[in-house]
Amino acid sequence: MTDTRICFIGDSFVNGTGDETMLGWAGRLCALAQRNGHNITYYNLGIRRNTSTDILQRWHEIALRQQPDCDNRIVLSCGVNDTTLENGALRVEFETSLQNMRALFARMQSSPGLVIGPPPVDDHAQNQHIQTLSNAMQIEAEKAGLPFTPLFDALVQDQAYLTEIAQNDGAHPTSTGYNKMTRLILNSGKWWF
Amino acid sequence: MTDTRICFIGDSFVNGTGDETMLGWAGRLCALAQRNGHNITYYNLGIRRNTSTDILQRWHEIALRQQPDCDNRIVLSCGVNDTTLENGALRVEFETSLQNMRALFARMQSSPGLVIGPPPVDDHAQNQHIQTLSNAMQIEAEKAGLPFTPLFDALVQDQAYLTEIAQNDGAHPTSTGYNKMTRLILNSGKWWF
Repeated sequence: MTDTRICFIGDSFVNGTGDETMLGWAGRLCALAQRNGHNITYYNLGIRRNTSTDILQRWHEIALRQQPDCDNRIVLSCGVNDTTLENGALRVEFETSLQNMRALFARMQSSPGLVIGPPPVDDHAQNQHIQTLSNAMQIEAEKAGLPFTPLFDALVQDQAYLTEIAQNDGAHPTSTGYNKMTRLILNSGKWWF
Repeated sequence: MTDTRICFIGDSFVNGTGDETMLGWAGRLCALAQRNGHNITYYNLGIRRNTSTDILQRWHEIALRQQPDCDNRIVLSCGVNDTTLENGALRVEFETSLQNMRALFARMQSSPGLVIGPPPVDDHAQNQHIQTLSNAMQIEAEKAGLPFTPLFDALVQDQAYLTEIAQNDGAHPTSTGYNKMTRLILNSGKWWF
């Protein structure tokens, strides 16, 4: 059977922060694939507070987890932390985010890849930045020939999701919200298994 | 509430390879702690085929996941891959394994740490090496003031566990075996939560 090894690289939403089951959407997708008979190795490289700049700098973590004789795949998701205000400025300026995305997508050409867009948070002003970045990521991903699944538009219209993150820490859902993200990715038809 | 961030670094058994739930013992321990009211961030840094030499070389992955204002903890488990034969020789000679363990344990002094011993595999000759290494790791860990929880002695006497790994890939259990490992660690009293 094909020996598939998937690196999920990104931020706290990739890590599954806030999910009391510790699976997040990445673990859920892999567990479903495994139960459907695929042979999946699941490497979660989500780090809290990571921006696109941070992820670019530690991209080398992926190579240690790939094997030449395996079906190596990469899923990238980030963006929310780029749009956080610190000392009155965005942590990563929009143009720099876009340059980072292009550099990340170029590094993803070597393996089958998938890009997941950033979700909304409990802050209207930040959400405008997230939506703009998500839309730009989609255009860049598609230019690079990478499938892109947005999370923003569906979740920002989901009042139960917004209430859940507001009652949690203002950014991360619990298992209910991570289940919704998982279904959005499954229903997009972009996930492989 | 204390913001606890735990890095689990090691090999495929840390990764949870073979567990169709994708949790492994590390994810199970964190999910239990979270359900018991702790605020846990779970970073899984297990990589398949990693020896103690490999882990030492990528120890820097941990620092990127720690935050100065958080309760940062480290769990290390490795050893099985050191004892694998390749071209007639151990992948890591016993004395080198011991030197690596001492170096790893020295790096663990900065944070609360826990060492989990290597489990048996479906190979009697390799198991003798694993048992010798596990015993030596325990001595070195305790010299370094680090709690150590062995898995070998309990699992090598567990016929159902041995049958499970023999029917799987000869090394890794499925969720049943990972549940057993989780209980061994919980029952050792060395786990914090």
